Parts: sequence; structure tokens; C-alpha cells
Amino acid sequence: MTFHSMWAELLPIGRSSASGGYRRFAWTGADLDCRAWFKEQAETRGLTYETDRNGNQWAWLGDPARGDAVVTGSHLDSVPDGGAFDGPLGVVSSFAALDELRGRGAEPTRPLGIVNFGDEEGARFGLACVGSRLTAGQLTVADARRLTDGDGTTLPRAMEAAGHDPEAIGPDPERLARIGAFVELHVEQGRALDLSGDRVGIAGAIWPHGRWRFDFAGEANHAGTTRLADRRDPMLAYAETVLAARREAELAGAVATFGKITVEPNGVNAIPSLVRGWLDSRAADQDRLDAVVTGVREAAEEYAAAHGVDLAVARESFTPVVEFDHALRDELARILGKDRDPQLTVPVLGTGAGHDAGILSGSIPTAMLFVRNPTGVSHSPAEFAAEDDCVAGVLALADVLEGLACR
Amino acid sequence: MTFHSMWAELLPIGRSSASGGYRRFAWTGADLDCRAWFKEQAETRGLTYETDRNGNQWAWLGDPARGDAVVTGSHLDSVPDGGAFDGPLGVVSSFAALDELRGRGAEPTRPLGIVNFGDEEGARFGLACVGSRLTAGQLTVADARRLTDGDGTTLPRAMEAAGHDPEAIGPDPERLARIGAFVELHVEQGRALDLSGDRVGIAGAIWPHGRWRFDFAGEANHAGTTRLADRRDPMLAYAETVLAARREAELAGAVATFGKITVEPNGVNAIPSLVRGWLDSRAADQDRLDAVVTGVREAAEEYAAAHGVDLAVARESFTPVVEFDHALRDELARILGKDRDPQLTVPVLGTGAGHDAGILSGSIPTAMLFVRNPTGVSHSPAEFAAEDDCVAGVLALADVLEGLACR
Repeated sequence: MTFHSMWAELLPIGRSSASGGYRRFAWTGADLDCRAWFKEQAETRGLTYETDRNGNQWAWLGDPARGDAVVTGSHLDSVPDGGAFDGPLGVVSSFAALDELRGRGAEPTRPLGIVNFGDEEGARFGLACVGSRLTAGQLTVADARRLTDGDGTTLPRAMEAAGHDPEAIGPDPERLARIGAFVELHVEQGRALDLSGDRVGIAGAIWPHGRWRFDFAGEANHAGTTRLADRRDPMLAYAETVLAARREAELAGAVATFGKITVEPNGVNAIPSLVRGWLDSRAADQDRLDAVVTGVREAAEEYAAAHGVDLAVARESFTPVVEFDHALRDELARILGKDRDPQLTVPVLGTGAGHDAGILSGSIPTAMLFVRNPTGVSHSPAEFAAEDDCVAGVLALADVLEGLACR
Repeated sequence: MTFHSMWAELLPIGRSSASGGYRRFAWTGADLDCRAWFKEQAETRGLTYETDRNGNQWAWLGDPARGDAVVTGSHLDSVPDGGAFDGPLGVVSSFAALDELRGRGAEPTRPLGIVNFGDEEGARFGLACVGSRLTAGQLTVADARRLTDGDGTTLPRAMEAAGHDPEAIGPDPERLARIGAFVELHVEQGRALDLSGDRVGIAGAIWPHGRWRFDFAGEANHAGTTRLADRRDPMLAYAETVLAARREAELAGAVATFGKITVEPNGVNAIPSLVRGWLDSRAADQDRLDAVVTGVREAAEEYAAAHGVDLAVARESFTPVVEFDHALRDELARILGKDRDPQLTVPVLGTGAGHDAGILSGSIPTAMLFVRNPTGVSHSPAEFAAEDDCVAGVLALADVLEGLACR
């Protein structure tokens, strides 16, 4: 199986003919088709296949019980109408890199693993990285059992319906203890490599990020008969807050987004009683993130007061900065840089996106490789990476695996 | 049946225990309960009850075939989570005014009718005043048959399920030709009477009003990894347009509202691909309304261009100014003013809300009475009118019916 043929097999699975995007939600039919593909890839290569207690899939060359394993991989599920590359590029590149290693005749001295983490995007149950969080003990079994999708199906019921025993879910420290290094390859989700002119980069850190819910509560009233002076219109305070978020993000060199909103009663001829907006913000460090969120919050309070609107702000989630293992990062830089070409340096990038590698970095040494994304578009059908760059990613990953596991 | 006891019977029907508001949508169970109540009120009083081809209910004292009838009434359906007064106050006051007339021993010389128009609010099928529009020929049968609710049920199917034959719907000019005057009593939906210190007012005109849909189309992208400079975020252009609408309405002495929005994909970590907002605007005259809408549109175009967002604006509905019949209005002013007290003048108010009386004004002489609303709140569970003011409304309506039909 070449990179090409693996890619071609995955392409049709879970693709919406309406949007051209992917709808591979955890434990649905499309996800199960992707998982069957993973198992087949493992078996085709004579790798030892297993599914762990949390539904993550593993393919092993060598016996992981020997310990100090080197693992690569990513995920195969998608956001609603996501692109083809996010997740799958890392998994396909892992199998292709193993093929490349074998083609080179490299002999691994450490166990080599490829993993497909379950439910990375959180599109179905609302929490990202469920598979890696459970394994790393960053999500309690009780909380996992309460996760429910939009149709009222709980995660355990969804697992069971898909043939996975939900009774066994929970932390898996023995499994993690066998892993000496985890390297995740991912398409870049911004344009840093495009701007620097590099095909491949190394992750430095995942920016701290969080989500805050802003509830602006006003007074429902008739849009045709209520004087402007008598209104308590929460849409006005919301609109001013959206613009404040952009200003604060610009000031701090951060990002801030209001991408989700719910309005009650959401009628054309009704002044809303409630506008609920969600702020997503991320920055290179905690101080900048605090500056953005404090600035937006203070502005929102001022606007709400000016419009006679009540404001409640709740932090719904928060992840502090994740610094990837410095020794492993430096090792990757050495392998991909001067080992190949004395002139070559590989850029080290921060990223605003969460990943399974970020979750695992609390338990084991982890690193990430990024492949150039010429438009920076992510989580959209328009997401794209050039074939040459994908091949460069496979070769870089093969070099890393060879450097870490075969010398 | 006193005003009180009629009111108490209606209060529980279709009331949401969650919001305290009413959900009396056309042809649903709550609406049918209201309609059964209307029929019972008619029969209890020995009035002749009938349902017309379009599902409007009528109660007659005297034979309408004699012509030149005087009709009063309103509607019993509600907006989502509407208040108790809108519509029902007019119907209950009509029966109470008839009781008052009989108590006075007044002998009508013209047929007297009370009407409950079907589906005034348009909450279920998206078009207001369906019952009166069909009767007046302002809604074609073909268009009415295409009306569909959120569950995919068409108006004809909904009528049929509720026991009304949908085959018969259509214009009813003979019925309208028998009516010499229609007077609708309604709770005021603003604070003009509260500010002037009057219990009851007379409608002068319904402001011209319309609805415009603003589609801001940007580019879906990852909220964490997309640089601000690379974004085409339609939420920003929407927010600026919401604020522009407020400014333009203030400048023109008009009203403008963005109360409804849909966002795609509406995810916390996704820059939206599409933000669709609806502008509702009304003004005392056409020139002012044009000024508001032109101003908002030009501002929106400028903002969209600045954010790299595409904008499409579509007018979804428009109703020109409705001037109520001047002769009938003057007659009501005479009956309620100097006839009662040489010092008394009754205020004549414009209104931004549409009504069945506005629809019928194209076919027959119509007028409206407004009852004071101390907070101006409308289309909300908080809508309120004081008992004394409701009683003043009943007595004023009785005076009007006596003045028009009994002398």
C-alpha cells in the first residue's frame, strides 16, 4: 500500500456530498469504517493489532511489553464538515513512514507503534481528546459516562452499539509506561510554514486556550412597537462585545473568536430576551490570554450596563500552555536538521490547536511534526496540503522513527 | 360570564410552565381549546355561531345577511412565549362589551358580530394574519397551500387534522361586503398612552414596515490557529451592522431590530462560514423607513468589504403605511370624546405592529382601540395591562358599538 492508495481508500469514507466535508463522528458508521481500515492496514503489514480499554487502536512492530517504545499516529475522526487532512494525514503518514523504514532496511531496536486515538475532535460528545484523556487519567470514568450526544445517546451506549465494551474504560498507566516517546504528525492549521517557506516544522508548545460563555439577558419585546429608549436589547451588547474581542486580540497578538451564538426567542419581530455567545481565545502565553479575556469581559460589562442588560460570564473550559518535551524536541530538530544538511534548520512553531499529543505530554515525552498548509485553512472542506509536502512529511517522520528507534 | 371569569377560563390554555408565556399556535391543541372557548361564549349568549371557509370564527347578534354589520374582535393565537393580553384582550372585551350593551338595554339597529381571526401571529407557518389575508384576497390559495411549519406540516394538512376542510379556503368578498365597520380592540404595544396618561386611544395608522435578510458569507476556519489577518469572519461584519441599525433608527426616529440570527457551522472553535441576520424596521412614514434601510445596507456593504466577506441583502416582506378609515376614526373620537365629556379628547396613535384590522382596511372601513400598557412590553410573558384599564377598554368598546349600531 502506497501513501496514495491508502489516501484514496480513506477519501470517500464519511464524506458529505452536500458540503464536500467529512462527518466522521466517534463511534458512528463512518468512524467504524475508518477503524476497520486501520485494522486492515495493521494486519496487511503483519503488525500486532489491538484495541485498548478506551477504544484507541494500536498496531505494533515488536513487543511493546519490552518497554521504551516509540509510537506515532493521530486520529481518524473529524469535526462537522471537516477537511480530509486533519488527523488522517498523521495516521496515513505513520503507515507510510513504517513502509519507508522497511524499504531502507532499517532494523528497529525499540518497539514501534502506530496509534489511532478515538474521538479526538469531540464533535459528537462535546469534549475533545476523549480517548487520550481517559488513557492519561485526565477524564474521570464518571465524567466520561455522562457524556451525551445531541440525540441523547451516552458515550457508553454509543461504544456498546459499536461493539466496544464500555465497562472497561479508564486510566491506562501501564500502557503509557511502556512508551518512551510519542510523535504525532499533523497538517499545520495556520500559515507559519507557508510564510517561512518550509515543508515541515516541529511543535514548540500548544498555546493556552479557553472557552467562555457570555450570557446577555435583556427583555423580550415587540420589535415594531417598543421605543428605542425603552429597550433592553442584548443583541446590541453582544455586537459591541464581538468587536471588543477582535480589538483585544489584536492588541495582545492573540486570537479571539465568537463563532457560536444562541438567541431567544430568535424571532424576526422580537427583541431578544437572551443572547448567548461563546468566546474562544488563545495566546502564546498565559499573560496575553489573561489580557484578552479580561479586556473583553470588562468591555462586555460596560456595554451590558449601558443597554440595561444583565451579563453572566462563565469559563467553560481551560487548558494551560503545553510545552512539548524539550529533549525530544531537540532530538527531532537534530535528526531533521543538521543530520541531513548542515545548513538546515527546522522551524519550531507554537500552535493554537489542541491535540492528543498535548494530552499525553503530561505523562510521557511527546513531540509533533507539522506539514505545510498553504492556505492555513483547517476544520473546513477547503483544508489542503500539497502532495509534495505530504511526501516530505512522510520522509521526515521516517527519519525521526529511524533516528529514535533504529540506532 | 363576567370579564373576569372569561379571562380566568382562557388563562391556563397553552401556557408554558417553563416560561410563563403562551404557545397558542394556529391549529394546535391549545388553539383548538381557545376556539372551543369562543364557540361556547357565542352559544352561551344565544349568538349565531359560524366558522368561515378560512377558519375564522364568528358570533352574530342579528342576521348579518341584512348587511351594514358592525363587527368587533381580534385573535386568540400567540407568538412563542407571548403574553396573555395580545389578541385575547380584544376577543374577551368584545363579549364583555356586548354584555354591557345588553345590560344598558341598548337595542342594535345593525347586525353585531364578534370575530376570532385564525393564525394572526404567524408563529407556526411564518406568515402573519393568514385568516384575514385569505378572506380579503391578500394571500392566494396557492401560496397558502404552500405554507409549511417547522415540522414539515402544510397549512392544509394542519387544518384538516384540526377538523377544518382546507378545500374551501379562499377569498370571501360576500362576507366582507356585509360588514359596514370593523373595530379591533388591542392592548397597546408601546408606552404612548402611559406617557400621555390616557387609558384608551384610537389608532391613526400602522407604520410601514419590512423585513430584510442580510447574508454575510465568509470562510469557515479554525478559531485557534487562523491568524487574525488571514480571517474572513462574517460575525464581525454582522456585529458592526447591528450597531449601524441602531444608529440609523435613532437618526430617523424609527425602530430597527436584529432579533433573529443563524450561524454556520455555529461551533465554539470555528470561525463562521455564514452569519445570516434579519433586520426588522418600521417608521412613521416611507421616507424615514427608506433612510434607515438604505443607511444600514450601505454600512453593511462597507463592513463586509473591510472583512473580506460577501454580502447579499434580500427584502423578505414589506407592508406600506396603513391609514385607518378617517370617517370611522373621527366617529370613534366623537363617541369617546366630547359625547362623554366636553373636555375629553382621545389620543390618536400610530403603531408599528401589524393587525387583522390593517389587512381588512383595504376592503372595509376599519378602526382600532388601544388599551394602556404601562410597561409597553409586548410579545413576552411580562406583557401587562391593569384591570382598571381593561375595564375602561370594555366600556369604551361598548360605547363605540352602541354609538355605531344602536342609534
